[in-house]
Amino acid sequence: MRLSNQINDQLLARAREAASRHGCTMSIAVCDAGGHLLQFCRMDGAFAGSADIAMRKANCAAMFNAPSHAIGDIVRNHTLTGFELSNGGLMLFGGGLPICIDGELVGAIGVSGGSAEQDIEVARDALEGLV
Amino acid sequence: MRLSNQINDQLLARAREAASRHGCTMSIAVCDAGGHLLQFCRMDGAFAGSADIAMRKANCAAMFNAPSHAIGDIVRNHTLTGFELSNGGLMLFGGGLPICIDGELVGAIGVSGGSAEQDIEVARDALEGLV
Amino acid sequence: MRLSNQINDQLLARAREAASRHGCTMSIAVCDAGGHLLQFCRMDGAFAGSADIAMRKANCAAMFNAPSHAIGDIVRNHTLTGFELSNGGLMLFGGGLPICIDGELVGAIGVSGGSAEQDIEVARDALEGLV
Amino acid sequence: MRLSNQINDQLLARAREAASRHGCTMSIAVCDAGGHLLQFCRMDGAFAGSADIAMRKANCAAMFNAPSHAIGDIVRNHTLTGFELSNGGLMLFGGGLPICIDGELVGAIGVSGGSAEQDIEVARDALEGLV
Repeated sequence: MRLSNQINDQLLARAREAASRHGCTMSIAVCDAGGHLLQFCRMDGAFAGSADIAMRKANCAAMFNAPSHAIGDIVRNHTLTGFELSNGGLMLFGGGLPICIDGELVGAIGVSGGSAEQDIEVARDALEGLV
Repeated sequence: MRLSNQINDQLLARAREAASRHGCTMSIAVCDAGGHLLQFCRMDGAFAGSADIAMRKANCAAMFNAPSHAIGDIVRNHTLTGFELSNGGLMLFGGGLPICIDGELVGAIGVSGGSAEQDIEVARDALEGLV
Repeated sequence: MRLSNQINDQLLARAREAASRHGCTMSIAVCDAGGHLLQFCRMDGAFAGSADIAMRKANCAAMFNAPSHAIGDIVRNHTLTGFELSNGGLMLFGGGLPICIDGELVGAIGVSGGSAEQDIEVARDALEGLV
Repeated sequence: MRLSNQINDQLLARAREAASRHGCTMSIAVCDAGGHLLQFCRMDGAFAGSADIAMRKANCAAMFNAPSHAIGDIVRNHTLTGFELSNGGLMLFGGGLPICIDGELVGAIGVSGGSAEQDIEVARDALEGLV
């Protein structure tokens, strides 16, 4: 299984709608299981700096098949000093979620632009129905 | 003037159609005038490596307000050794085009996945009607 | 609207005067809304290392349209581990301020060389009358 | 001997005048003997991408106490493969000149925005009277 443009178009559309419901303008990135970008949208008015962060959150979730905030909790609880420097620079906070289909990692979504909690919710809303 | 999601959605849709007409699967990136990513699509089947190239072509065209192949011609004709190492790493071949509205640089498009000539044509097709 | 050499010459002159009033020698950077350098001055006696920091503070303020110390507060209060690794490496402490004209982000100023508080004051003094 | 703000203000003013005489808008960087930025100006209308190139040309001239085009000639004539990858990425073409006072390297100037020949001329014009 792989993420297709058909799926990703829907993921981005749902994420944009969810962000608007939260009153936020966000950057949303979808990457493959290798962390390489598949589709991306920076919404009108979102900070330029949110683009890089969304892509890094997606990469983080793909590289470890786990939510970026969950990896962050492990890293902080176990004082895994320097962990964030690996893999090109990881964002170890909320907004990155792995995407699994039939139990297999196929990619990840990364959202940036709101609070970490809002970013997580938008990422979850985008994946709803899919996973 | 700025590029909006409304414009960029159309640019990506037109680029995807144009790529399909060429029988190619491509990565298409749209960035703002500062080279920061606005929207992106890697088509089903396009090489993972084409994502980074498309983004760098767009950045190149934005940084110098010129087609990436035209900058490449200058760099090669004048043996500007090392030029490609500037600005985070430039792609100095066909597929990056600046986007101007009312004579002002507002961003750029970068296309990768076919031959350089095909990439240029798809980028041009995407911008047709806009500029 | 864009920052012009006329404006930036004044910003740098005011920042240099303000730094001198604080008895400090500083680096001052002004960048555009995309974070790309417009003008820069390292004052006689300022640390060589302050140059890079001033440029990164300006980039940080431009990328998020907010003071670098305000972004830093959010990052520390919410434990956004790794945030500083995004966008080429961010300086998340005082001295970077966005520059808005008619409500639009046009660039940012970054100051380094004194305490974070002094850097903020010098940046504010430089922008006084402009924004 | 060191480059001072008094000298650098004059260097930048002369470079801006010289660029205008050439009908060009350029980026001009002055660095110290360690290649660290001292002063910089991107003229109104100069490409965003010229900023990084001007700084790298100055760094190149400072690192080897020679004009960037002369180092480029040596690198190309002797096939010094990969040389441009050293020192953070070197620009091995015209526009970077070392600055010596009383026979001692004190820094360098880097100019970008015109042709390599124009960039060299503007750098020379800026240094005239100084060295």
